[in-house]
Amino acid sequence: MENIKLTLAYDGSDYHGFQLQSNALTVQEILEQALATVFGTAVRVTAAGRTDTGVHAQGQVVNFQVSTRVPVDRIPYALNAVLPKDIVVHRAEAVSALFHARYSATSKVYSYTIDNAPHHRVFSRKYTYHVKYPLNPAAMAAAAAQLVGRHDFASFRASGSAVRSTERNIMRMEVKEQESYISVTAEADGFLYNMMRIITGTLIEIGRGKRPPDLTAVLAARDRSKAGWTAPAHGLVLCEVKY
Amino acid sequence: MENIKLTLAYDGSDYHGFQLQSNALTVQEILEQALATVFGTAVRVTAAGRTDTGVHAQGQVVNFQVSTRVPVDRIPYALNAVLPKDIVVHRAEAVSALFHARYSATSKVYSYTIDNAPHHRVFSRKYTYHVKYPLNPAAMAAAAAQLVGRHDFASFRASGSAVRSTERNIMRMEVKEQESYISVTAEADGFLYNMMRIITGTLIEIGRGKRPPDLTAVLAARDRSKAGWTAPAHGLVLCEVKY
Repeated sequence: MENIKLTLAYDGSDYHGFQLQSNALTVQEILEQALATVFGTAVRVTAAGRTDTGVHAQGQVVNFQVSTRVPVDRIPYALNAVLPKDIVVHRAEAVSALFHARYSATSKVYSYTIDNAPHHRVFSRKYTYHVKYPLNPAAMAAAAAQLVGRHDFASFRASGSAVRSTERNIMRMEVKEQESYISVTAEADGFLYNMMRIITGTLIEIGRGKRPPDLTAVLAARDRSKAGWTAPAHGLVLCEVKY
Repeated sequence: MENIKLTLAYDGSDYHGFQLQSNALTVQEILEQALATVFGTAVRVTAAGRTDTGVHAQGQVVNFQVSTRVPVDRIPYALNAVLPKDIVVHRAEAVSALFHARYSATSKVYSYTIDNAPHHRVFSRKYTYHVKYPLNPAAMAAAAAQLVGRHDFASFRASGSAVRSTERNIMRMEVKEQESYISVTAEADGFLYNMMRIITGTLIEIGRGKRPPDLTAVLAARDRSKAGWTAPAHGLVLCEVKY
């Protein structure tokens, strides 16, 4: 048996997230069907992280065990020939038996893109969230900078989710504007449920001037109700998983 | 009555082109429905040019006559509030009664984008045509340069189309590569039916080394069968109409 690592991209628009569900179409289901077709045997994948309904991926990572004669560099071609166009495998690598897509990950990079032009742009509409009110990227960047470091992000976690610890380390956080697109990019050792979307929703409120840019009290409160709203899923992309 | 010029973008994926058809959904039909809703009266638009089934627009231009109290700068907001997300009006201007979207145009700019990465990229897949074989952009650019100027483009016109003259003037033609995307951009005083798609199909054959880069004989033949194949519609965008 070999342990294979795949790096894949998908348009999450038509899926109920990555992870298998008994009664809804997910990326994992379609990917595992393609793997079964290519390898002639049932394959179960382990992903670096779930992405929610409507969230996209540029560099999702999965691994799985298989015994095959297909050369590893041909695996993406074989899979892409049977996958629908909204899922693409960019890379396959044979990795150590110890590699685990989720537990071996050291950090993940997510990016949320806001289309801040007066009218939304058609070609990016499924991957950006349109805000017609002018936003102040400098205020958003100043606020975002306060989130860098190890903090308790309980205020930026969807209520009702249960995890052992709500402490996470954001190593890098950037707000960039280019051609009226504003992107919020964060690299962290982990993300709480809806964390990126709540951070972005909060930054949008700051960018509109509806909330002061100081997030110290919000972080300290450890209370979801102190942060802003949850920005819609379709602006969010899982860019990269680092190992 | 005022003469209003609109600049609009659309994702052509789900439309049978721009122009009204009795038994198929077109951009014009949806646009005229939105205009009727906003102005409370039937409106007929004149477009700079038809785009075919599946072809997109970044800067299509139409004009129409209307008597209205809606301030001209509010027209895009009013229309976008009722249009589906795949059609967006970016600009409205009150223009001279003599302005005609088609006859007043001095040139149009079309761009065809090829995704030349080994595996197609999901987020651009509906607006680019994926060619997995490595292409040579320099050979394509050299060939494209031969098409600049006033020529009889009969070899680059879909057979069966009837126009008075097949002479057109290509003022500018560029082949650019960036991040494994190859774009073919042409500005001309007019385009024959399928001209951009046949030019691009021919350039792809040249880029693959399956056809010599000298197009002199192809141009001189005035024979559709001497040029290459017709590249698929979904890589083509009407970028701009100049007046």
